Amino acid sequence: MLTLFHHPSCPHSRFVRLALEELGLTARLVEVRTWERREDFLMLNPAGTTPVLVEEGAPPVPGAAIVAEYLFETRGGSAGLMPSESGERIEVRRLMSWFNDKFFAEASGPLVTERIYKRFIPAGDGGGPPDTEIMRAARNNIRYHLNYIGWLVRKRDWLAGDRLTYADLSAAAHLSAVDYLGDVPWNEDETAKAWYARIKSRPSFRALLGETLPGLPPAPSYANLDF
Amino acid sequence: MLTLFHHPSCPHSRFVRLALEELGLTARLVEVRTWERREDFLMLNPAGTTPVLVEEGAPPVPGAAIVAEYLFETRGGSAGLMPSESGERIEVRRLMSWFNDKFFAEASGPLVTERIYKRFIPAGDGGGPPDTEIMRAARNNIRYHLNYIGWLVRKRDWLAGDRLTYADLSAAAHLSAVDYLGDVPWNEDETAKAWYARIKSRPSFRALLGETLPGLPPAPSYANLDF
Repeated sequence: MLTLFHHPSCPHSRFVRLALEELGLTARLVEVRTWERREDFLMLNPAGTTPVLVEEGAPPVPGAAIVAEYLFETRGGSAGLMPSESGERIEVRRLMSWFNDKFFAEASGPLVTERIYKRFIPAGDGGGPPDTEIMRAARNNIRYHLNYIGWLVRKRDWLAGDRLTYADLSAAAHLSAVDYLGDVPWNEDETAKAWYARIKSRPSFRALLGETLPGLPPAPSYANLDF
Repeated sequence: MLTLFHHPSCPHSRFVRLALEELGLTARLVEVRTWERREDFLMLNPAGTTPVLVEEGAPPVPGAAIVAEYLFETRGGSAGLMPSESGERIEVRRLMSWFNDKFFAEASGPLVTERIYKRFIPAGDGGGPPDTEIMRAARNNIRYHLNYIGWLVRKRDWLAGDRLTYADLSAAAHLSAVDYLGDVPWNEDETAKAWYARIKSRPSFRALLGETLPGLPPAPSYANLDF
């Protein structure tokens, strides 16, 4: 029995949900508002961040990268999401970190915080209207990441090589969180757009595309497979 | 033949150097000034960050966590630095991320940038005098991390359990980068201080403690084993 503590807009949570779907695993979903800093959630993950995957017989598994390693070790090689060859895993881990850390710091983190979380956070705790300067910078950063995806996919079928891996799921998870807001300039790179269309059409993406935040509907093309 | 592209003040580079020493591995060291954004280094790691470990027959391995996984996979279990049991590895990875990501974002990253890197970065590229407000906040954050280390070590011999692991090396690496500057309030937590004294006395630490940056000598107690 798996339980995933997550938030629908958290890009790292989206990564884990995609990975679980790709592996055919079902998890009970528990929504967490990390800004509430609830005691029971801090017991699971003292860092106070989503996602956390909980499975009987193991300690709570916090964070996208650590969940990826855990699933790789406990689910028979994660069905190719992590390659069997050590050298190839370097590239998958490098790109996972690129999107989970770098893209998050430069784009998906600030945009989700400014445009979504700050609606729900009380004004005294840092909530309120978005900082348009931060939004502008983050949106601009997405461009070079799209170009990087396009550059990679022009050399390979998928981001890290010939097969779909955690690298693709990581990039798609972060882009999807921002695409919900309509902030991805898809026309910037046609190859990146075609790669995202391929991922978005997979059954693992369906649940994400069907969800709507209360009071904040997705951008018109968000769930459109022919965007 | 291993080559490590590093910077003496980079906490993540320090982590890799400690890990290599603990494993009895020798690497050729090449100093990188990441702010110069040299083309040849960006070829090794497009993210432009240190450390990068290079070994013949494998792609360049970027970043502390990815190097730790690589050494674990290629060096016979990393001699216990990563536990053999999957559940125990969760805790080691959680704490590696705590220090490599969270402590770095809140303390070692800003302090090393403000107090060291900005001395060497040209004024037009973001160099110049340190921002004292950032320094003050980062120094203050170190306190709760020391308390957390003390809390963990009061329950266990080492941070993640009964043995020295990557978790200890990660915490010690980041603290040492800041301790060079005299910015660690060791009297905040006696247990954390005793734990650091144990790590600092290990032969793996010697090379780090013997180094001095040109024009910026370490704080008086930095290399003192009885601090």
